[in-house]
Amino acid sequence: MNHRIAILGASGYTGAELIRLVATHPRFSIVALSGERKAGMSISSVFPHLRHLPAPPIYRIDEVDFSEVDLCFCALPHKTSQQIVAHLPKSVRVVDLSADFRLRNADEYQKWYGVPHSAAALQETAVYGLTEFYRDQISTASLVAGTGCNSAAAQFALRPLLAAKAINFNEIIIDLKCGVSGAGRALQEHLLHSELSEGYFPYAVGGTHRHLGELDQEFSQVAGEPITVQFTPHLLPVNRGVLATAYVRGDARTIHEVLSTAYAEEPFLSVLPFGEMPSTHHVRGSNFVHIGVAGDRVSGRSIVVAVLDNLVKGSSGQALQNANVMLGESETEGLLAAPLFP
Amino acid sequence: MNHRIAILGASGYTGAELIRLVATHPRFSIVALSGERKAGMSISSVFPHLRHLPAPPIYRIDEVDFSEVDLCFCALPHKTSQQIVAHLPKSVRVVDLSADFRLRNADEYQKWYGVPHSAAALQETAVYGLTEFYRDQISTASLVAGTGCNSAAAQFALRPLLAAKAINFNEIIIDLKCGVSGAGRALQEHLLHSELSEGYFPYAVGGTHRHLGELDQEFSQVAGEPITVQFTPHLLPVNRGVLATAYVRGDARTIHEVLSTAYAEEPFLSVLPFGEMPSTHHVRGSNFVHIGVAGDRVSGRSIVVAVLDNLVKGSSGQALQNANVMLGESETEGLLAAPLFP
Amino acid sequence: MNHRIAILGASGYTGAELIRLVATHPRFSIVALSGERKAGMSISSVFPHLRHLPAPPIYRIDEVDFSEVDLCFCALPHKTSQQIVAHLPKSVRVVDLSADFRLRNADEYQKWYGVPHSAAALQETAVYGLTEFYRDQISTASLVAGTGCNSAAAQFALRPLLAAKAINFNEIIIDLKCGVSGAGRALQEHLLHSELSEGYFPYAVGGTHRHLGELDQEFSQVAGEPITVQFTPHLLPVNRGVLATAYVRGDARTIHEVLSTAYAEEPFLSVLPFGEMPSTHHVRGSNFVHIGVAGDRVSGRSIVVAVLDNLVKGSSGQALQNANVMLGESETEGLLAAPLFP
Amino acid sequence: MNHRIAILGASGYTGAELIRLVATHPRFSIVALSGERKAGMSISSVFPHLRHLPAPPIYRIDEVDFSEVDLCFCALPHKTSQQIVAHLPKSVRVVDLSADFRLRNADEYQKWYGVPHSAAALQETAVYGLTEFYRDQISTASLVAGTGCNSAAAQFALRPLLAAKAINFNEIIIDLKCGVSGAGRALQEHLLHSELSEGYFPYAVGGTHRHLGELDQEFSQVAGEPITVQFTPHLLPVNRGVLATAYVRGDARTIHEVLSTAYAEEPFLSVLPFGEMPSTHHVRGSNFVHIGVAGDRVSGRSIVVAVLDNLVKGSSGQALQNANVMLGESETEGLLAAPLFP
Repeated sequence: MNHRIAILGASGYTGAELIRLVATHPRFSIVALSGERKAGMSISSVFPHLRHLPAPPIYRIDEVDFSEVDLCFCALPHKTSQQIVAHLPKSVRVVDLSADFRLRNADEYQKWYGVPHSAAALQETAVYGLTEFYRDQISTASLVAGTGCNSAAAQFALRPLLAAKAINFNEIIIDLKCGVSGAGRALQEHLLHSELSEGYFPYAVGGTHRHLGELDQEFSQVAGEPITVQFTPHLLPVNRGVLATAYVRGDARTIHEVLSTAYAEEPFLSVLPFGEMPSTHHVRGSNFVHIGVAGDRVSGRSIVVAVLDNLVKGSSGQALQNANVMLGESETEGLLAAPLFP
Repeated sequence: MNHRIAILGASGYTGAELIRLVATHPRFSIVALSGERKAGMSISSVFPHLRHLPAPPIYRIDEVDFSEVDLCFCALPHKTSQQIVAHLPKSVRVVDLSADFRLRNADEYQKWYGVPHSAAALQETAVYGLTEFYRDQISTASLVAGTGCNSAAAQFALRPLLAAKAINFNEIIIDLKCGVSGAGRALQEHLLHSELSEGYFPYAVGGTHRHLGELDQEFSQVAGEPITVQFTPHLLPVNRGVLATAYVRGDARTIHEVLSTAYAEEPFLSVLPFGEMPSTHHVRGSNFVHIGVAGDRVSGRSIVVAVLDNLVKGSSGQALQNANVMLGESETEGLLAAPLFP
Repeated sequence: MNHRIAILGASGYTGAELIRLVATHPRFSIVALSGERKAGMSISSVFPHLRHLPAPPIYRIDEVDFSEVDLCFCALPHKTSQQIVAHLPKSVRVVDLSADFRLRNADEYQKWYGVPHSAAALQETAVYGLTEFYRDQISTASLVAGTGCNSAAAQFALRPLLAAKAINFNEIIIDLKCGVSGAGRALQEHLLHSELSEGYFPYAVGGTHRHLGELDQEFSQVAGEPITVQFTPHLLPVNRGVLATAYVRGDARTIHEVLSTAYAEEPFLSVLPFGEMPSTHHVRGSNFVHIGVAGDRVSGRSIVVAVLDNLVKGSSGQALQNANVMLGESETEGLLAAPLFP
Repeated sequence: MNHRIAILGASGYTGAELIRLVATHPRFSIVALSGERKAGMSISSVFPHLRHLPAPPIYRIDEVDFSEVDLCFCALPHKTSQQIVAHLPKSVRVVDLSADFRLRNADEYQKWYGVPHSAAALQETAVYGLTEFYRDQISTASLVAGTGCNSAAAQFALRPLLAAKAINFNEIIIDLKCGVSGAGRALQEHLLHSELSEGYFPYAVGGTHRHLGELDQEFSQVAGEPITVQFTPHLLPVNRGVLATAYVRGDARTIHEVLSTAYAEEPFLSVLPFGEMPSTHHVRGSNFVHIGVAGDRVSGRSIVVAVLDNLVKGSSGQALQNANVMLGESETEGLLAAPLFP
């Protein structure tokens, strides 16, 4: 029997990606789509590129019959998501794509998001959705919290190095470049084509980006001691793609070896030959991650670069990967399509 | 048993697209790849976005053992292709993506391509590869000639209208806009990023573009009399996408009806609701064609707009569609992936 | 003594361009800037690329002392502009960049813009601001109405041909391609980078674009009889540039001769050698217009292509050119900067 | 009397920019243009965007009469330039835009460029062309060596900090992002639009980029001891713009103060208010540099970001600025045009 899937927030980019990916899954059936602003519209009106798919129309959330749903993807805005998820029937398993359940600690949530969490008990039960590192817990979880796209890239570059103590914990700098679609479909002046194209700039400089909450939580847990990294994102005039350039102190060959070993069996994670560097071109539209390692001319310092597609491996593809794990499907089902280049 | 597939010219963009698409086909196995300039390299070196695929290395053509090949995709340059195809074993069925076998008449070939055809006998046997209109002949053909991407777009917009005499034959203007990848991976100054991005321009103005040879041949055959259209292509700073805006004399509602009826059963061709217009965004990376029809304020004049992805429906996807027909597979196998947006 | 200049609507793109251009004019001084939403901000906050200029802060319109102003550029939205201009002191000469004063006939205004004109008397006195064709009237005008950017491109391509009866009046098709900035800085979903980049599409198909009101008025006057053209705009993922491809019936050599003669003394209008085609790359950021002419293989039919930068020659540069004429300055002052390429 | 100017290598991008900028200079006259591959062509054929300028045709270098030249801009490839400059008459002052005269030490040249310098004596006499730091020497120099565009950005961010010992000398990381035009007009596969657009990647990782030769030389001189920085460039799908993100150890407020003071009188260098960050959008097409400073959440660590247009302040604008200094003109003449945005 097919798994019955609902997608809440289907009119945003991550919602559209979920529909695109889930539609290719042989044992998943989309039974409900919701989107407040576009309720009543067909998916072919909201996303004409999906017009060939047999998707249900878009409803308001309160019109969805959750008794017919096995698993629900929540692609809702931060703060909204926690309110919706808290009121779903217990029988519905949830993969949440917002930031609402990534942090295990309620105080940390308030620190980074500026408001108290309205479903703190639920927050504690959520499993962090970086599949490759939380598979067992995800398989039995009721609620999985999708990671930030930027923090996913940084973690793929660095988690095994922290676990293996292959790098100095006090000098980690992550210079991050990200594409536009990560900011979603909201109407903001700085996201207009005229404002963005043909230029680029840093933002949230100095350690204020909210994805740092996740990095602090995860890196500290892996390292066994508090880790505080530097992290500077830059917005690029490209729709998809996150590239994290990590500057670390550690031996480059050792780093390459640690990462290669850690990811040897991972279907989506490729560590490139030593010294080769990845490009966001080569993962665009796919669930793959490419990682490059090189030594610097400054002795003892190394560079690790990871790339992924923020809408796939950074959110909707990761979400489907987690759903596969939760529902006992092959983890790669629906996720092996090659990147689109050029 | 799987069909054994060779791809010649695997280091160009249409070659890469063939690999990407064929790799998802459950009954096709790639047994040989060739590429003269990149012979000896692995596909992951030439196209790192395909590094996860189990593809064979790239060889020179003369190193390929064609006795092990059932069907060969030729993604070679014009003029080269006719020489290679002429010397393949008779047992190998061929889908050619070059311009070499699109024109049935040797004189027309010489007129548009400036040189005599070196395999004129073979030219006569080739079937024109616009699947939706040549299915029966393709199913038994030894050699199928893939169409031009621009001429495919124009034909999807207009063929049924000519067949039904729904438009005036003497006033057909096709203003065409195409993306960059149609020009291939050749090193030419005007294809550099710095030259192309942030601007656009017409080229081959006045009726000199070679795809007109195909349009003349096909439109005249469909109409039953010589048809000479106007055709002006424009190069846009976008990698994928052809958009053909056809200006015709004829009743818009009738035109919409004729196209809707003609394509009602076609899995890849969508005629949009009357008055709605397509976007290249909505077919990017896919084998779909979207067609819009509207009437003009000038009485008796109508506008038909067709969009497709030049590398998929305009070449490599079309080629796989033809191979499916030739080998008795479902015509849509490997071709139903949704477009990538944004 | 310097001319004292006010710019209303300084926080939009045409406002920014006016500041950029006027700042290089040796005898123009900007004495006031207005912008309702950004009132109270400095120009360096609203447009950091202009931070080196000694511009006044942005005020609300009702805070501007118009007794200190010789000439006022109005870069306000349609409908707002007519209300503001109607209440300016008579001593202030006005160059309006909105659509509010382009049409001389109040009924035509209502037809194309959907509401009655609130300053119909003023509307009648306005001079149409296509400088090259209205110089004498502009020199003494109190109110000059800047043209639409798309209609300017079409008129540069066709006006002399209508005047000379060098083309058939009943078969004029204008396929127009325009960049994004023409849509302004408004927050609209389809103007987001993620929505626009990497694709393109037609809009206002069938003769519904408002710039047709201008084309009807101007072409009919030049021709001496009612002229109704076909006009189909397409939105491209490029910030600047309009390219009009006009399909006409007429002799190409004659057309080239008529245009070359008509524009021989024009500093901003270049007719390219016969058969050469222009590119928007080559006028970007400048007040220049490039025009190409070619014959088609269909006998008796020709193609005329005109390009301009919508924010310069299509609006703010044209506005400064008109102001120069009104104030007795050299028409080219402040407008001879070369295009930016690449 | 006007200064008579020759531009060698006029058919590349920096050559075109020199023509664009010099043409606006009231006391510079272009008397000769050279370009080997395009010799015999007019500038309007090679760069149609400059067709309105009264430029001489393009010659081979050996056809140029240097007795009529006061100052020569050499925009030739590395290695070629040193051969040409060595044979120019002594009466001709030279601003070289290649890498050939940036390094004062012949061994360093060989180390970074892989071949011995063929004009080592001349190399020693050249003045490094970072105008703001070498004005006096430039004013009397016969030969000025234009800097690398990337190294210029890094130096504007860091030189005053090294001079003031405001940062730790052992922990300087420069993560650099650069646009495409810096790679010039050469025909290389990775510079094609299809290869570059919609993605990004690092290159020359680990300290192998040649601009490091300059940084080592200049930073060490300023600091008074050997300085070895980390430097990782990334190629972005944008035509213009360099953004250098420098990670340093030092107090952010002190850093901001040192930079603000150092550049207080500089017409082209703007230090933004503390905490504000620059964008390449805001300097595009201009000779301006914007610099932002912020503190990091990691105590004692700061971030300095500098942006410039690689073709203007990074090469041709800098070259004109140097020529102004050499010829006793106002340093800003011809260089105050505002950036182009959007």
